[in-house]
Amino acid sequence: MRNIKMTLSYVGTRFAGWQVQPGRETIQGVLEERLSRMLKERIRLAGAGRTDAGVHARGQVASFTTASRIPLEGLRRGLNARLPAEIRVMSAEEARPGFQARADARGKEYRYRIVCGDEVSPFEAPFVTFVRGRLDAAAMDDAARRLVGRHDFKSFCRADCRLESKTRTLLESRIVFENGRIEYRVRGDGFLRHMVRTIAGTLIEVGRGRLAPEAIEAILEARDRRAAGPCAPAQGLVLERVLYGEAP
Amino acid sequence: MRNIKMTLSYVGTRFAGWQVQPGRETIQGVLEERLSRMLKERIRLAGAGRTDAGVHARGQVASFTTASRIPLEGLRRGLNARLPAEIRVMSAEEARPGFQARADARGKEYRYRIVCGDEVSPFEAPFVTFVRGRLDAAAMDDAARRLVGRHDFKSFCRADCRLESKTRTLLESRIVFENGRIEYRVRGDGFLRHMVRTIAGTLIEVGRGRLAPEAIEAILEARDRRAAGPCAPAQGLVLERVLYGEAP
Repeated sequence: MRNIKMTLSYVGTRFAGWQVQPGRETIQGVLEERLSRMLKERIRLAGAGRTDAGVHARGQVASFTTASRIPLEGLRRGLNARLPAEIRVMSAEEARPGFQARADARGKEYRYRIVCGDEVSPFEAPFVTFVRGRLDAAAMDDAARRLVGRHDFKSFCRADCRLESKTRTLLESRIVFENGRIEYRVRGDGFLRHMVRTIAGTLIEVGRGRLAPEAIEAILEARDRRAAGPCAPAQGLVLERVLYGEAP
Repeated sequence: MRNIKMTLSYVGTRFAGWQVQPGRETIQGVLEERLSRMLKERIRLAGAGRTDAGVHARGQVASFTTASRIPLEGLRRGLNARLPAEIRVMSAEEARPGFQARADARGKEYRYRIVCGDEVSPFEAPFVTFVRGRLDAAAMDDAARRLVGRHDFKSFCRADCRLESKTRTLLESRIVFENGRIEYRVRGDGFLRHMVRTIAGTLIEVGRGRLAPEAIEAILEARDRRAAGPCAPAQGLVLERVLYGEAP
């Protein structure tokens, strides 16, 4: 059996997220269905990140095993020809035996985009969260950098999350600000459900002046979802890349 | 009566172009309908450029007269709240009496975007024309610059165009090339129907090596639509801005 690793980009707007769900159109569901039909074999994909409904990806990674001998370039082109325009296989390669996109991921990088001001251009609207008025990007950056390091992120994940350990390490957590566009960049060894969006929602509160950057430490210590800000909308979030071999 | 000038951005993908057409959803049609309902008055818009089906705009300009005393900011926000997300009023201002967006335009600037390579990202796909393989951007730029000046553009407009004079002046016509993205920038005192897309289609032929940059002069001289390349797809074209007071 061959083991194949694909890098995927998708615009998540009209999909119910990555993971297969009965009766709903999901990225994984569409990919598995088109791959299975193309290779005439039941294909099951392992995706590195289970992006939520409406979340986008520039560098999602998924792997699968197959008995097919199809050349990689034929696989990529053939699959793209069958996929809706919102989902693209950007590359396909042979992976070592046993490689599994989810289990082997060492980390991930996400970006969360915010446009503040009077109005957002319709070209950007589907990929950003729009905040009317002004945000203090310097205060947001101050707050964002306080999250770097190893912390218990219980305050920043869905209250119903049952994972035993909510401790994760962030290697990068900062704001890049340009022309009224605010981008939160975060890279870490793992992320809890809604974690990036809850951080983004909290940073927006800081940007609005409703929360001081120094409040971040107390929010982390509270280990209580109610201590953090709201979960920001899905459309601003992009899974930028998945890290393997390299340290995150 | 007040005379109001609006600057509009829109993603034209799912619209049948700017101009009102019975039974089809057009940008002008949607705007007139929402404006009329909001101001409780029959509003007729004059648009500076009649963009075709699927063409986008970043800086379309439209004007209208109204008896309403609604403040400009209330007009802009109220209209945006009623419009689909693909159409945004970016600004609204009082125009001098008699100003008319179409008749008073002194020129326009368009951009046509092309991505060449293996694959186009789904984030860009709706706004570019994808060409598989490589394009010679330097040859395209050479060809593009040969169009600067005052010429009879008959070879570059729809064969059924009945305008008496097809002479137009281009002030800028060049290629900007970055990271596999090719952007054709063109600014002139006026454009014929399909003119930018036919120039873009001809430049793509040059980029593929099927036509020499020097062929441009002969195509202009032919004054025959069949001399130029194909009309490139609508989705790559953006009406960037409309020029008034200033010379184009």
